[in-house]
Amino acid sequence: MQLDKNQIKSLNDQALPDHRESFEYLSQRLIHQNLEVEKLIQKIQDFQVAIPSWALGTGGTRFGRFPGGGEPRSLEEKITDVGMLHALNAGSGAISLHIPWDIPGNVEKIKALATANGLLFDAVNSNTFQDQPEQELSYKFGSLCHTDAGVRKQAVNHNLEVIRYGEMLGSKSLTVWLADGSSFPGQMNFRKALQRTLDSLKEIYAGMPEDWKLFVEYKPFEPNFYHTVIQDWGTSHLLASQLGERAFTLVDLGHHLPNTNIEQIVATLMMQGKLGGFHFNDSKFGDDDLTVGAMKPYQLFLIFNELVAGMEDKQSTNPSPAWMIDASHNLKDPMEDLLQSIEAIQLAYAQALLVDRDALESAREDNDPVFAQEILQAAFRTDLRPLIAEARFQAGAAIQPISVYRKLEVRKQLVLERGSKSQATGL
Amino acid sequence: MQLDKNQIKSLNDQALPDHRESFEYLSQRLIHQNLEVEKLIQKIQDFQVAIPSWALGTGGTRFGRFPGGGEPRSLEEKITDVGMLHALNAGSGAISLHIPWDIPGNVEKIKALATANGLLFDAVNSNTFQDQPEQELSYKFGSLCHTDAGVRKQAVNHNLEVIRYGEMLGSKSLTVWLADGSSFPGQMNFRKALQRTLDSLKEIYAGMPEDWKLFVEYKPFEPNFYHTVIQDWGTSHLLASQLGERAFTLVDLGHHLPNTNIEQIVATLMMQGKLGGFHFNDSKFGDDDLTVGAMKPYQLFLIFNELVAGMEDKQSTNPSPAWMIDASHNLKDPMEDLLQSIEAIQLAYAQALLVDRDALESAREDNDPVFAQEILQAAFRTDLRPLIAEARFQAGAAIQPISVYRKLEVRKQLVLERGSKSQATGL
Amino acid sequence: MQLDKNQIKSLNDQALPDHRESFEYLSQRLIHQNLEVEKLIQKIQDFQVAIPSWALGTGGTRFGRFPGGGEPRSLEEKITDVGMLHALNAGSGAISLHIPWDIPGNVEKIKALATANGLLFDAVNSNTFQDQPEQELSYKFGSLCHTDAGVRKQAVNHNLEVIRYGEMLGSKSLTVWLADGSSFPGQMNFRKALQRTLDSLKEIYAGMPEDWKLFVEYKPFEPNFYHTVIQDWGTSHLLASQLGERAFTLVDLGHHLPNTNIEQIVATLMMQGKLGGFHFNDSKFGDDDLTVGAMKPYQLFLIFNELVAGMEDKQSTNPSPAWMIDASHNLKDPMEDLLQSIEAIQLAYAQALLVDRDALESAREDNDPVFAQEILQAAFRTDLRPLIAEARFQAGAAIQPISVYRKLEVRKQLVLERGSKSQATGL
Amino acid sequence: MQLDKNQIKSLNDQALPDHRESFEYLSQRLIHQNLEVEKLIQKIQDFQVAIPSWALGTGGTRFGRFPGGGEPRSLEEKITDVGMLHALNAGSGAISLHIPWDIPGNVEKIKALATANGLLFDAVNSNTFQDQPEQELSYKFGSLCHTDAGVRKQAVNHNLEVIRYGEMLGSKSLTVWLADGSSFPGQMNFRKALQRTLDSLKEIYAGMPEDWKLFVEYKPFEPNFYHTVIQDWGTSHLLASQLGERAFTLVDLGHHLPNTNIEQIVATLMMQGKLGGFHFNDSKFGDDDLTVGAMKPYQLFLIFNELVAGMEDKQSTNPSPAWMIDASHNLKDPMEDLLQSIEAIQLAYAQALLVDRDALESAREDNDPVFAQEILQAAFRTDLRPLIAEARFQAGAAIQPISVYRKLEVRKQLVLERGSKSQATGL
Repeated sequence: MQLDKNQIKSLNDQALPDHRESFEYLSQRLIHQNLEVEKLIQKIQDFQVAIPSWALGTGGTRFGRFPGGGEPRSLEEKITDVGMLHALNAGSGAISLHIPWDIPGNVEKIKALATANGLLFDAVNSNTFQDQPEQELSYKFGSLCHTDAGVRKQAVNHNLEVIRYGEMLGSKSLTVWLADGSSFPGQMNFRKALQRTLDSLKEIYAGMPEDWKLFVEYKPFEPNFYHTVIQDWGTSHLLASQLGERAFTLVDLGHHLPNTNIEQIVATLMMQGKLGGFHFNDSKFGDDDLTVGAMKPYQLFLIFNELVAGMEDKQSTNPSPAWMIDASHNLKDPMEDLLQSIEAIQLAYAQALLVDRDALESAREDNDPVFAQEILQAAFRTDLRPLIAEARFQAGAAIQPISVYRKLEVRKQLVLERGSKSQATGL
Repeated sequence: MQLDKNQIKSLNDQALPDHRESFEYLSQRLIHQNLEVEKLIQKIQDFQVAIPSWALGTGGTRFGRFPGGGEPRSLEEKITDVGMLHALNAGSGAISLHIPWDIPGNVEKIKALATANGLLFDAVNSNTFQDQPEQELSYKFGSLCHTDAGVRKQAVNHNLEVIRYGEMLGSKSLTVWLADGSSFPGQMNFRKALQRTLDSLKEIYAGMPEDWKLFVEYKPFEPNFYHTVIQDWGTSHLLASQLGERAFTLVDLGHHLPNTNIEQIVATLMMQGKLGGFHFNDSKFGDDDLTVGAMKPYQLFLIFNELVAGMEDKQSTNPSPAWMIDASHNLKDPMEDLLQSIEAIQLAYAQALLVDRDALESAREDNDPVFAQEILQAAFRTDLRPLIAEARFQAGAAIQPISVYRKLEVRKQLVLERGSKSQATGL
Repeated sequence: MQLDKNQIKSLNDQALPDHRESFEYLSQRLIHQNLEVEKLIQKIQDFQVAIPSWALGTGGTRFGRFPGGGEPRSLEEKITDVGMLHALNAGSGAISLHIPWDIPGNVEKIKALATANGLLFDAVNSNTFQDQPEQELSYKFGSLCHTDAGVRKQAVNHNLEVIRYGEMLGSKSLTVWLADGSSFPGQMNFRKALQRTLDSLKEIYAGMPEDWKLFVEYKPFEPNFYHTVIQDWGTSHLLASQLGERAFTLVDLGHHLPNTNIEQIVATLMMQGKLGGFHFNDSKFGDDDLTVGAMKPYQLFLIFNELVAGMEDKQSTNPSPAWMIDASHNLKDPMEDLLQSIEAIQLAYAQALLVDRDALESAREDNDPVFAQEILQAAFRTDLRPLIAEARFQAGAAIQPISVYRKLEVRKQLVLERGSKSQATGL
Repeated sequence: MQLDKNQIKSLNDQALPDHRESFEYLSQRLIHQNLEVEKLIQKIQDFQVAIPSWALGTGGTRFGRFPGGGEPRSLEEKITDVGMLHALNAGSGAISLHIPWDIPGNVEKIKALATANGLLFDAVNSNTFQDQPEQELSYKFGSLCHTDAGVRKQAVNHNLEVIRYGEMLGSKSLTVWLADGSSFPGQMNFRKALQRTLDSLKEIYAGMPEDWKLFVEYKPFEPNFYHTVIQDWGTSHLLASQLGERAFTLVDLGHHLPNTNIEQIVATLMMQGKLGGFHFNDSKFGDDDLTVGAMKPYQLFLIFNELVAGMEDKQSTNPSPAWMIDASHNLKDPMEDLLQSIEAIQLAYAQALLVDRDALESAREDNDPVFAQEILQAAFRTDLRPLIAEARFQAGAAIQPISVYRKLEVRKQLVLERGSKSQATGL
């Protein structure tokens, strides 16, 4: 299914009077702070976050899965779903494929469908953390780090194949997340495992087209429960440094030990020109993969505060990072979850754009933590929802995306179309 | 399959000379410390830990599952597997069933099989954290705490049914672990959810035979990632207190926030006469469900130090707790994993029996932490492996269980018998 | 020193036009949501948070202390400082004394001074976690839990003395925070220590006037690093239940293990009628004692969401809790830190008052986590700073407290008056 | 005071018969495992751990300090105390000085005293985390990272001065631990702070003699509670890499977020040739600075397992790390605490030496976590106390150090000599 632009327009018309009023008030306040509202809107519109192809279905935990209905049954339906999101919020104009879940059959048709939905193909993702039915060797004890050269070769080849698919579709980067590690003390030789991982990554790096980038993700635990080969940003950075200048670290918000200062990691990586990508989600306990901004919206703002500072730094050699949502939708309708996530991202980004950086640097020079906090919190406390809504509205999307989604009964139609027992590939 | 006692005996004969030597040396040292070796052996033999019926198969994570072969395909095969464990270590003489995974078809045959394997039926476990194929209402949003009275009723009835099965088999207690909770702020009314849970538990409690006990388990998170209705021992204790004198708290080692002093919780509960059961496993990050003693053997010893102190306290009104292993075997052969777990439990228990309690209390009265630590560590550092081996040997089991298991090529035979793709029910 | 009301008024006059505009806009929006603005303002004004007497000086860590200047040298100067805060924000109309740091010499003069500053005397606090110069027995190894009956007696007597001081000044409650515990496994008998603590608290409880309440605080660690006798809310609740109906649990935000769901604890305690008091601060790693709202403002809002729900529940038997800030001011001017803290508290409270509770309960009944989140975040994202400013303004305080504090150069004058090396008693 | 060698000998004579028996039994078992007992003893004797000069006094927390008596009042007395430790355990033959607490007055006398006590001077430590009475500029807002070039210069000069003192005494390395960071979001510019720290460290590095090494310590939090400039090994390694080949990372056991796999960090650093030093202690919650091995002895063993693997690797370019105890002695007699710590270190080291590395590598190649665990735990469970005692005995030290310390009533004599109120410099 596809959303009818007229329906969105008609619902926007109803919301418009109220929106106009609040946006006008906000505009005045922002202008009063010497902010250029149109530039803010432009930046918000330019900030596009990729949706991973598997995120359109119901996720689960090791204890169970409670599927909703109407999940996409094919890559085509996944693209359609992301297209609907983008039509609603004008902020999710890219899709990030996971191979082997999303092997494109007819490449040209897939590309045309994406274009029709206003979508680009972002980073492609390999998967060596599961065994596929026809797979020759098992990844039970690792992939790129495996003691068996045959398994490593198989995993390297898989990554090279993923690159080939990505090339066909116009992707320009490969994200490697490795579950490799061990669950028991003694099980694995830390140093050999890291060395083998580096060697395997070198082969993959060598197999990338010259204009591609490699993103090396890290994670402290899960699915392994004692040791993960790439356990932290330090290890990822070590590997990326040794791989070459087109290798970067990818930060996933949920992949940190309790209490980690993630915004500092972001700042350090951008300072080194090595932040390649960022995966959004939220969490309270571990890699909970919850809706972005559902748990710690202030932390999200602080991270954006560093991202914006890094992006606005003219000295910086850091490329523009790849943005993706990486959450699991166990209880919420995945589409609604993603709409909430994008809104939270846009709000945090806009708040960070509001920060008076000159005043902040001045407070820092003066060692004035009280005033520095006032500056940050003034930005954070400002209600920027009308600004985000206006950015959407000007881009032809919905003023109130979730409300529209519900009023149009999208899920109901998807269930009718796809059935209540459809299961997204890869879940 | 069943283990041939003669084969165990023959392998014991080979191990005997070396064992004799080390056991004799250890005996002398223990006697020198005024310990009665035969009483220690008796206590170790009396300490039986239940094996949960689902633990005989390969576990997994939300990211995947890498099955080994030869998993039990039926309750009968599960009982046989536990029987083999018990034949090897004489320490796992009970099985704990999970309904609906283990509904006994022919009760008398099941009971006879258990008896033949030297096994008792420990606590039965209900499951309202998953939806079963034919289930009418879903537990997606909770069971005993659900907003819908119909779901609560269904969950209560399921528990009552579990009790009925348990009665048939000779169980005397019901363990209730609830995944109930919410993953997002706002999703659930904390107070109402707790009240509904209490009300539902009251119905279950009322439905128990008069000689049964109810164990209320707690867990801080997973599968819910914001709020779990019974999040900690305090909440479990609150419920157990309000339910009645046959309701108790059950402690699972892995169900705690980082850095929790679990041994203190054990001590407090025993002091209140409210520790009903204990689930063994080990972990580094969350509810990792690793082999007991694989990660923090000293913590395990400290917990046993409290358990022994509580059990030896003649003033205590606490019943003898129900012991069960509650681990997931993702990478190891489940049988070997369980053999290692039982050995770790027996060692920690024996170490705790070694503690010179009079000297310890005296050091405590003197506020002498140096000497108190010396006393505990003296017990912990003593190599008690020969004592455990002797306890096994005297009970007709294997001096070296894992070695025997491997030499007899048990797994190979199980795969031959059951196939390499068999999957234990419930996984 | 005292603040000149005319100066505040004059600075308010400057801020007024801008404030008027934003308040009027906000009022309209709130009215549009069927909220009664004047009632909201009244509630905000009624919400008074006590300032602990020691919070007016520079705090420190075990690594060092970097004192600012102008710290209060006496109880009188502490009262004056809190009076200034209250004059600025009309939200900190109480002081909470710590004995022996704040023994009132001339009770009548102290009371008159407080009255002149518009201040009440909130809960009094005992201190048995430090040794005082003339103290007979040491608390090195505990106080109310000590193995030595003499130490326990001394600690009980100290608490009774604190009550006497509190009675003279008009306090109606005693807060007991115990550092009691042990730093090494084995050092202390958990069960005996808890029993002795209960027995000691019973003596204190018996010594309270009939209209007094006893607040039992808990904390997982620090200054003891293995075991704290009252380690969590469960233990505190156990003690409070056994003490009597005028004993309650006190929750300090910073006293929890990583990732604890504190709002759930608050809800459970209010449900039991056992939440006696609440200490505000913020933290990232441990008991960091940072400015309220500086780190996790959304968590603060979620806690207030439960507090408001509990307070508005007409069935509830929970008394109105005692509110206090409990932070340490190591880097910021303590007065500015407290002004930021009060503002953060008021904002979170006001946001919680904004929550559409009927809609929220309805979403909960429907198991609609998406909409429940929308409702909460709609309240949280609303910029309520003008409402708080208006509440202050109507109460005769400053529209912009920190700005006024800085423009009036209060710290500079305090340093002139008290010197740059003055040290607040108790630090 | 100094220990009378004859008294140690006489007490050894009493302990000898029992020791002989257990050592002989252990020797046989070890020989049986193809281990060369004399080589093990030699390695244990060669493993010398430095005692920091400030560790001889009673530590404290921000809540208070409960001094014991007889604390050393001067550098001379500190050296004497370490000398006594070394006489008792023959394992602490070095002292690590902290400037400005331990500025040597008469260098030649100090050196002679150390030599007489069998002690070397290990790494020297600078202190820019506190303000000293006569200090011109404050470190309240940082030192090497400070916004003010004057403060940075002062801090650099202090480090250069520390190097000068170290040179005089024969030290060959400088340990830099920086408390630098911020406690509030916004307070500090992460990137500038890191850049300034690097620039300052470059100046210090340039000021070291050519045969010196620089150790860069890291810590996630405390005394700053939001951001620490060198927050983790990744940041330390980044700095050390950019400084030069004589700059290394120093790992302090207590300086990690909850659940960190520290042994993996050790392995990675040794693999990069960048592990410069190691600080021993133990902890449950944060940087608790407890007795080594008091809380997690198995983790200590796993760390030593990596250290030994790294040290025995002939390909490794990593220098021999500097070993130091870095604990705080709040409740125990500092001397006894250090004796327990050294024993725990020696035991863990000896256990790691026992690991059958060929078998372990073979199990790893086979992906056999069960057997790998058996190998590690076989080493860990072996009671090696007699081996450590023998290593001490052969080196002329005490078979039972703590017992001797108590029987000789050392503390009592120290109190007589130095008084019950003496306070070690720096505490």
